[in-house]
Amino acid sequence: RADGARLWATILETAAFGGTPAGGINRLTLSAEDGQVRDWFREACEAAGLTVSVDALGTQYALRPGRDMARKPIAFGSHLDTQPTGGKFDGVLGVLAGLEVMRSLNDAGIETEAPLLVVNWTNEEGSRFAPAMMASAAYAGDFTTDEILAKRDAAGTTVAEALDAIGYRGVEAVGTREIGAFVELHIEQGPILEAEGKTIGVVEGGQGIMWFDGVITGFESHAGTTPMPRRRDALLALSEFALAAERIALAHAPSAVATIGEAAILAPSRNVVPGRVAFTVDVRDPRSATLDAMEAALAEAAAEIAGRRRLEIALTRIWRKEPVPFDPAIVAAIDAAAESLGHARRRIISGAGHDACNLAAKVPAAMIFVPCKDGISHNEAESATQADCAAGADVLLQTVLRLANA
Amino acid sequence: RADGARLWATILETAAFGGTPAGGINRLTLSAEDGQVRDWFREACEAAGLTVSVDALGTQYALRPGRDMARKPIAFGSHLDTQPTGGKFDGVLGVLAGLEVMRSLNDAGIETEAPLLVVNWTNEEGSRFAPAMMASAAYAGDFTTDEILAKRDAAGTTVAEALDAIGYRGVEAVGTREIGAFVELHIEQGPILEAEGKTIGVVEGGQGIMWFDGVITGFESHAGTTPMPRRRDALLALSEFALAAERIALAHAPSAVATIGEAAILAPSRNVVPGRVAFTVDVRDPRSATLDAMEAALAEAAAEIAGRRRLEIALTRIWRKEPVPFDPAIVAAIDAAAESLGHARRRIISGAGHDACNLAAKVPAAMIFVPCKDGISHNEAESATQADCAAGADVLLQTVLRLANA
Ligand SMILES: NC(=O)NCCC(=O)O
Ligand SMILES: NC(=O)NCCC(=O)O
Repeated sequence: RADGARLWATILETAAFGGTPAGGINRLTLSAEDGQVRDWFREACEAAGLTVSVDALGTQYALRPGRDMARKPIAFGSHLDTQPTGGKFDGVLGVLAGLEVMRSLNDAGIETEAPLLVVNWTNEEGSRFAPAMMASAAYAGDFTTDEILAKRDAAGTTVAEALDAIGYRGVEAVGTREIGAFVELHIEQGPILEAEGKTIGVVEGGQGIMWFDGVITGFESHAGTTPMPRRRDALLALSEFALAAERIALAHAPSAVATIGEAAILAPSRNVVPGRVAFTVDVRDPRSATLDAMEAALAEAAAEIAGRRRLEIALTRIWRKEPVPFDPAIVAAIDAAAESLGHARRRIISGAGHDACNLAAKVPAAMIFVPCKDGISHNEAESATQADCAAGADVLLQTVLRLANA
Repeated sequence: RADGARLWATILETAAFGGTPAGGINRLTLSAEDGQVRDWFREACEAAGLTVSVDALGTQYALRPGRDMARKPIAFGSHLDTQPTGGKFDGVLGVLAGLEVMRSLNDAGIETEAPLLVVNWTNEEGSRFAPAMMASAAYAGDFTTDEILAKRDAAGTTVAEALDAIGYRGVEAVGTREIGAFVELHIEQGPILEAEGKTIGVVEGGQGIMWFDGVITGFESHAGTTPMPRRRDALLALSEFALAAERIALAHAPSAVATIGEAAILAPSRNVVPGRVAFTVDVRDPRSATLDAMEAALAEAAAEIAGRRRLEIALTRIWRKEPVPFDPAIVAAIDAAAESLGHARRRIISGAGHDACNLAAKVPAAMIFVPCKDGISHNEAESATQADCAAGADVLLQTVLRLANA
């Protein structure tokens, strides 16, 4: 078993890096605060006797030797970056429980057959740089390292510059690190486990995700003198489009979701009819065909609104991640570990994207979920209990032992 | 007659202060660029033999003596500040035509009975500091000087600090400057004169204006894991409210207008359901009773949306300017001046707010409109012809002579 109290202490300790007054964390990827928590993680891993290295996209790998060094390591971990209004558990739990697994094995003097590897993936959240889960996607070969290094945040800073600024542009080539299997512990970020009184979610796959960038170009005009019918108001067009996106998601209920998370008027002024609005759209569903249908419906809605309101709506898909089935053997190992520990559990599909979803294309992978309060995540109020975090770490430890000694 | 070519040259020359690549002007009130155009204006006035002074809110007054210095000056002018995406004529025409009136009278060696005063009012646009037409409102007694000095822009800078930063916090007490009558030349900023082929609008009054600040407080949640019906999405609430505001304005067609000119998500992120949105509303109609009805309808819509979507919508009215009738004698003087010059003209109501609307509460006031291309204003594409600007300056000159020598 893992030391749940020690795990909890590390969660509270690292929450100070980017901690907000409301009890959350604002630790955007590759920010100064992200640099601080990375330094903390490197030192903690080294103190636990692990060998830490960093790849060209800043992902941190900490290795614990196995008896059979010819075997590929069993890897686990998640991410230490957060949303701007993030909580203390999203991603953090998976990395720190990974560290706790290493510490607990050290304490118990347990050696494994295969080596073990705890990983902190760069930019899982996708809030500062799009897309999300960038580094694990590059690891899996979805993007080249150079493509990712060139991505820019809203201020125009590239990933390369941001890595250099915090000293985390490593030398290891992305994707070269050997991994035998990948297990990720994470809070559910949804309401199902809590509602059903289950402690462990055995995650069978992740739903598909599409991200779009949108720009609406109407015409700036005077708020006092421009008659309503003459206006080409970009904000009213966005309003209709946002409500259409909601309707389209509801038409594919209950699984589908659609979200406009960013929207900004260019050069806003109280007495100017908005002429230009930029926005983002996030669309998800566990079925590929539903993604197709929703994309077509969004394009149709945009065209209809643009025609009626005499303006332009440009919608560009910048990312599509297909639904991911996890590896049945890893899923079975997690299920067996949870059963052996006597935890109430259920099979579940992840609504969020995770690094494990990218890894799954390259190595056998699956995930362990624990409940979070009211299903709330990407919010400073995100909360999970010490007992559930400890249960998750126990299941992670037992799963890793099964895989490493198999 | 005024020298239309010289007037045009000053319009083009001063357009360089804050000039944009698209041919507009971005010269927010009390910005460095506003400081530059103010310096230019002071020097030009002094070169024309005028005595320039500045009041405690930065308004510039340039006096030309009359034969009878016991008479109150006949004042004219407008403003040199612009919108962030402003054009070259809004406000600028009225101030520079005022300078041109002074220069033309000098050239012709004409003395007037009453002294003449050309005025550049501070912050007419209201884009950086709310409300619009701030300095003329303080002049008329609607606000104290200290109330205005304490207003803050989005960056938290006060009017007092912004005045000091460009050296335009004068010593003259606001409202003490004697004015016998006020005439403001302005582009129409609407489509009526152009559509009807009239050169001059004889403005009989200005419509009423209300400004609101709004905040919607929903709940940030994960874009991938939060089922649509559980969301408390502040942007979807704003979308419904914006469309409701449009419907409410259309219900009072053709005169009423409603505009959401600013809207911003707090801590936006692609994969976060927006939790908090701040926005502004601008509502106008020539009838006071319609303003009342629209305010009630907006409050009702906000309450309905907030209740249905389980979030809070706070709507605060920060300004209400009643509809303003202009002084019949000044209106008649403008009409007679336009007739004497043979310009096609019509009576008109102003859709925009103007300093003359504030002045009207304290001194006899009215306005002269000239057409602008396609009725476009608060847009870098704002355009007016040299001939129409010259016609407006001629009517201003003739009106001023009538009033000053009456
Ligand atoms: N787990 C998580 O919140 N990932 C961020 C990427 C996403 O939006 O799903
Ligand atoms: N004339 C003008 O555009 N004034 C700005 C104030 C308003 O919004 O009407």
